[in-house]
Amino acid sequence: MLIGVIGVADASPEEEEMAEIVGQLLAEGGHTVICGGRGGVMAAACRGALHGGGVTVGILPGTSAAEANPWVSIPIPTGLGEARNAIIACAAEALIAIGTGWGTLSEIALASKMGKPVIALGSAPFLRPFAGDAVRWAESAEAAVEMAVSGHLSGK
Amino acid sequence: MLIGVIGVADASPEEEEMAEIVGQLLAEGGHTVICGGRGGVMAAACRGALHGGGVTVGILPGTSAAEANPWVSIPIPTGLGEARNAIIACAAEALIAIGTGWGTLSEIALASKMGKPVIALGSAPFLRPFAGDAVRWAESAEAAVEMAVSGHLSGK
Amino acid sequence: MLIGVIGVADASPEEEEMAEIVGQLLAEGGHTVICGGRGGVMAAACRGALHGGGVTVGILPGTSAAEANPWVSIPIPTGLGEARNAIIACAAEALIAIGTGWGTLSEIALASKMGKPVIALGSAPFLRPFAGDAVRWAESAEAAVEMAVSGHLSGK
Amino acid sequence: MLIGVIGVADASPEEEEMAEIVGQLLAEGGHTVICGGRGGVMAAACRGALHGGGVTVGILPGTSAAEANPWVSIPIPTGLGEARNAIIACAAEALIAIGTGWGTLSEIALASKMGKPVIALGSAPFLRPFAGDAVRWAESAEAAVEMAVSGHLSGK
Repeated sequence: MLIGVIGVADASPEEEEMAEIVGQLLAEGGHTVICGGRGGVMAAACRGALHGGGVTVGILPGTSAAEANPWVSIPIPTGLGEARNAIIACAAEALIAIGTGWGTLSEIALASKMGKPVIALGSAPFLRPFAGDAVRWAESAEAAVEMAVSGHLSGK
Repeated sequence: MLIGVIGVADASPEEEEMAEIVGQLLAEGGHTVICGGRGGVMAAACRGALHGGGVTVGILPGTSAAEANPWVSIPIPTGLGEARNAIIACAAEALIAIGTGWGTLSEIALASKMGKPVIALGSAPFLRPFAGDAVRWAESAEAAVEMAVSGHLSGK
Repeated sequence: MLIGVIGVADASPEEEEMAEIVGQLLAEGGHTVICGGRGGVMAAACRGALHGGGVTVGILPGTSAAEANPWVSIPIPTGLGEARNAIIACAAEALIAIGTGWGTLSEIALASKMGKPVIALGSAPFLRPFAGDAVRWAESAEAAVEMAVSGHLSGK
Repeated sequence: MLIGVIGVADASPEEEEMAEIVGQLLAEGGHTVICGGRGGVMAAACRGALHGGGVTVGILPGTSAAEANPWVSIPIPTGLGEARNAIIACAAEALIAIGTGWGTLSEIALASKMGKPVIALGSAPFLRPFAGDAVRWAESAEAAVEMAVSGHLSGK
């Protein structure tokens, strides 16, 4: 599966650690990580995925592959700016959100609008009363990956 | 100024009434409304703007101008799907959000990421603890318009 | 109708003159000009349209309305870079091409792919053997406008 | 390198054969194929690349990975329609065009506008007088791949 890992560029050490574990678990499960290709959560998820023997796709806002973090195996410069967030939401079969920023929030919202399962791992807790079934909160990286790859909406 | 009015397609009567007043006040002030061009809040804002003698731009997700509401004076079919939300956020000089849906939330987030002033009129109250100065909440349509056209960030 | 006027930024005086006449004739006929919002052919078409009492929409590649030429009445900064050409092709009901550049050529091709009538006014003569009915060549600004607003494909 | 292979969906047997060889040679050289992910030239290039042990990326116009041809290893549904052509042009480091259609022509034009090397393999011969150094014509699949991966503009 193609799983989106979305999150802030200025992540805390804890967020980066979670992202790295998420990336590694996804890769070990045979899944491909798609993300915004930049730093913070995105870089950590890609690093973890490469450690796990996986492939990582970075959907970049600018026009140069050089803006990708070093663990992006397939950089896709789009030249679309922030509109590239909609591509990540559209391409991913499910998304795991780590940390809370405006970019991350836009991806959660776009993915939910498109009907994609979103798993929040310490992300956007304030969305709980609003999100209904569209977003589910995970307590650990392992749980988040399990929810993402099993299609968390299918149990309804 | 080009002011975005963003909000849900399945709006309540109160939300539509607010949107219509917002549209009319913007037009009377000489401003142009830009929106997603569909129903609910978008249609009401356009209707109000036309009543106020203004111009309305609808940035449509599909490829046909026929999907615009009847009060869009300049329909722009983009064929971009949900990614068109990023264009609304990018083009508007300030945005007024009415009602809360995933599409609206994505536009609030994208606009805030781009540094655009967002005024929430009964929209996304759960964002208050997170939003900081990026979003300001208005108590009335009149206040929302005043904040949007005066550049609400300039007073900081 | 919303008519696209597409063409090179570094236009010749003759191309600019044709573009200005096209813009003015479109506006006098009650039509709105949509273009890339920059210089050369785009600026001349907008200038003509304003002289004719019309409205002009500029779909800009960058994120700032300041990059629009002075005759764009509704600047739409998209932040999409060259991908904004697809929006011009999608939004216009017919397009008039003046001069030949890679950007213009991409718009002719995208519009033809979308089934939009394209009228070439001294543009891309080398396309004649390939274009079939998708592109028609006009001998004058007057003829180009007439073809564009009458739906040149309907006569087939 | 990430090399774009662009071309028509309704390709001739000869065009498909060239595309398959191009895909295989690129993969054997350690390069990744990026394309529009659909049929004809795109499918043949992907099939060749998989036979060569490579990876293929399909930038799809719609919202479903199911529209990818069976040899796309990483499908990226974008939901952007024809605007996805601009992403292929932006992401590829060089592009090989096989066959001539409006979509292909739009990608050649967008890539040339962005300064990307384009190699035409039996594509758009009518562009020769216009293209200058932006497009180079190859006589064989082998020559096209060699030009693409060596950076054909560097010899100027």
